[in-house]
Amino acid sequence: MREHSGLLTDLYELTMAAGYFQSRFDGRATFELFVRHLPPHRNYLVAAGLEQALEYLENVSFTAEEVDYLRRHRSFGHIGKEFFDYLGGFRFTGDVWAMPEGTLAFPGEPLLRVVAPLVEAQIMETYLLATLSYQTLVASKAARISTAAQGRQVVDFSARRAPGGLASLLSARAAEIGGCRGTSNTLAGQLFGIETYGTQAHSWVMAYENEAQAFSCFLDAFPEGSVLLVDTYNVRNAVKTILRMGRKPAGIRLDSGDMTGDSIWARRALDRAGWNDVKIFASGDLDEYKIAEMIEEGAAIDAFGVGTALGTPGDAPHLNLIYKLTEVERGGQVREAAKFSHAKATYPGRKQVFRYSNARGEFESDRIALEDEAPDGGEPVLVQVMRGGRRTAPPEPIGQLRNRSIQNLARLPERYRQIHRQATYPVRYSKRLVRLRDQVRERVRRLALK
Amino acid sequence: MREHSGLLTDLYELTMAAGYFQSRFDGRATFELFVRHLPPHRNYLVAAGLEQALEYLENVSFTAEEVDYLRRHRSFGHIGKEFFDYLGGFRFTGDVWAMPEGTLAFPGEPLLRVVAPLVEAQIMETYLLATLSYQTLVASKAARISTAAQGRQVVDFSARRAPGGLASLLSARAAEIGGCRGTSNTLAGQLFGIETYGTQAHSWVMAYENEAQAFSCFLDAFPEGSVLLVDTYNVRNAVKTILRMGRKPAGIRLDSGDMTGDSIWARRALDRAGWNDVKIFASGDLDEYKIAEMIEEGAAIDAFGVGTALGTPGDAPHLNLIYKLTEVERGGQVREAAKFSHAKATYPGRKQVFRYSNARGEFESDRIALEDEAPDGGEPVLVQVMRGGRRTAPPEPIGQLRNRSIQNLARLPERYRQIHRQATYPVRYSKRLVRLRDQVRERVRRLALK
Repeated sequence: MREHSGLLTDLYELTMAAGYFQSRFDGRATFELFVRHLPPHRNYLVAAGLEQALEYLENVSFTAEEVDYLRRHRSFGHIGKEFFDYLGGFRFTGDVWAMPEGTLAFPGEPLLRVVAPLVEAQIMETYLLATLSYQTLVASKAARISTAAQGRQVVDFSARRAPGGLASLLSARAAEIGGCRGTSNTLAGQLFGIETYGTQAHSWVMAYENEAQAFSCFLDAFPEGSVLLVDTYNVRNAVKTILRMGRKPAGIRLDSGDMTGDSIWARRALDRAGWNDVKIFASGDLDEYKIAEMIEEGAAIDAFGVGTALGTPGDAPHLNLIYKLTEVERGGQVREAAKFSHAKATYPGRKQVFRYSNARGEFESDRIALEDEAPDGGEPVLVQVMRGGRRTAPPEPIGQLRNRSIQNLARLPERYRQIHRQATYPVRYSKRLVRLRDQVRERVRRLALK
Repeated sequence: MREHSGLLTDLYELTMAAGYFQSRFDGRATFELFVRHLPPHRNYLVAAGLEQALEYLENVSFTAEEVDYLRRHRSFGHIGKEFFDYLGGFRFTGDVWAMPEGTLAFPGEPLLRVVAPLVEAQIMETYLLATLSYQTLVASKAARISTAAQGRQVVDFSARRAPGGLASLLSARAAEIGGCRGTSNTLAGQLFGIETYGTQAHSWVMAYENEAQAFSCFLDAFPEGSVLLVDTYNVRNAVKTILRMGRKPAGIRLDSGDMTGDSIWARRALDRAGWNDVKIFASGDLDEYKIAEMIEEGAAIDAFGVGTALGTPGDAPHLNLIYKLTEVERGGQVREAAKFSHAKATYPGRKQVFRYSNARGEFESDRIALEDEAPDGGEPVLVQVMRGGRRTAPPEPIGQLRNRSIQNLARLPERYRQIHRQATYPVRYSKRLVRLRDQVRERVRRLALK
């Protein structure tokens, strides 16, 4: 699977590209990528996935076989040779503005804006949507889970629960950006510089005659840092076995049953043996709701491993990210564009988001405006990340992205951060933008009659 | 991202592998991959993803850098050089039995069984879970959507909604296996031989001064097979514009609003012009429930494009697939293994699934048994797909996988196929399997006291 293949897109993008190319419609177009509404149970999004988007934009190309594959499509029968030659040498040459990864985002706000020749900007749509929506979804979930954990460590365990092996690299990365600390995903650790965690599974315990043997063989191989899994047969028996063995592990892990009750019981048993520094980990279908409940009930848990909820967030399984044309140039003339379908209308023009804070530095509201409007005391959120198809800066280390999301979240008032209630952060459109939208609607109505 | 990297796994698999290696625990182990329960709103699963699982098993390896990365982990400090040398030359040498893709699967039934040296079988866990669970999830959803469409074509539009660009290749493939016909995903079309579809988006319409111009430029470039999108501003105006232009497209597409009402209106308008062969397509947040409702209400729709519901099925966002040790050999002695944690118990031993049909060929019930039990009139469902790390047969063409799921589904009684009600297909465990489980539980209890 060629990751940076230009064919990794909806066929209609290539069809339209051929159509534009054929009629020499090659002016610069602006597309913006945003959500119309937040998914259920979300008060904010944490933008993530930009790095992979930029990698794609920098490296996208078509091999000769890929061009041939397209040429053989019956529907492309009337498309001239020039278009296929163009694809053979295709590269993305546009400019990109985006919210840096880890930035909070709200409905209507562009996470990314592409300004590029129409053909190029069109072909990029599908990949940009897929990569930004999944990572943003996971990072947003991770922020909620980390919030619920109240400072306790949350480790990404989504490798086996992510939608395919390669998607698990993205979920591990996005989880870290959203506030997790560490992953079980070894390749993600290597590729992105995330701390990796993982000691033993049920199969280890089951492979031995009994738990005493399983635990002691493990401590022989890994005298330091061992976390022993205690729920294969019976948690309390397993903890008693470990205490009886007298070899102190780094921690124990609960993965099923009444983890709150078992953790309190285990903490006391470990403490009585003077093993106050043996940590208790919990995993097994956890999410922000269960973690909040366990902490509320006094669970003695030091760290959480979360898999399914991060890799495939069940309470908000997808983000309806869209990529909409907002401006297009033809023959030197620039025209703003918008869509007015039922419940799916969009705003035209190149936008910037200005974020307003109060005296304590807390975010108060956002204003979506045209990019040349005065900030009026707000911080501009979108920055230029690509010029002429090349990055304006090297990739940011993941720790920096994680810090950004944590700092962003710390500035978000508590009512938007809490996990159980919906609260709508105020986002308004500038007067100029509203006026422009009305003008475009008028123009569309008028021209429809022609 | 190295797709067949041995690091694409949870760190604990590699930790355990090192532990087993170190203590020369190198007998053959059996692991089985299955779900304990069906996800909500599912009466069956359609097995998918085996092809990518086998590709991984055939190609998995560790580069020198990957081995070094692992060696540098502090927790691996006590692991000898031999293990890292072993990883440097690692390849999977085991045997694999599996349900062919497109086969119906039910809870407790192994979708796949690995018999391999313990170290190898352990490392493979994470990738196998991730790739089989996502494709099985999507194929199962696709089967429901195709059922709801009652013979009308369903095209996969999930490319932009899948969890990342590369996952979209898997969703397109799995959708086809589950019964879709065609995809918008161009690279999936090329890689897997799936028919691709896609003509124009809203951006095309918005890029032109008005719809008449947009449609006519499109028909110039694509005189055949053009499907014109009619909901950018106002569906009925757009259809009237096309009729007034007098150039017949292959079809029109609705993507928002009252698609049932608009389709009925458009069908009449098109028919009045003698354009009975112009097809009407619908897309836009569709799933099996909406499709069933639209058909019930008399929508005049010939084909459906489904994206989000296929790429990230919201009513069942994940499959809790597990991979459990069921047997292990050490020093020539074979021991069956099972887990007895609270609500997470498993059955030991190497299993086969026997499927029983009535005189009309309809599936009646399944029996999960030990692999050497007599079929007793049932068809064995698992077949050997890999021997000594090599496939037993070349990959099957996707059309064959799709036919299998369609034929399987046709043999499933209607009450399990309908989309609105839960109905539990009968699956029982053989007496020998129950007896073996009880014996293993007894043994675990007894040995725990030692």
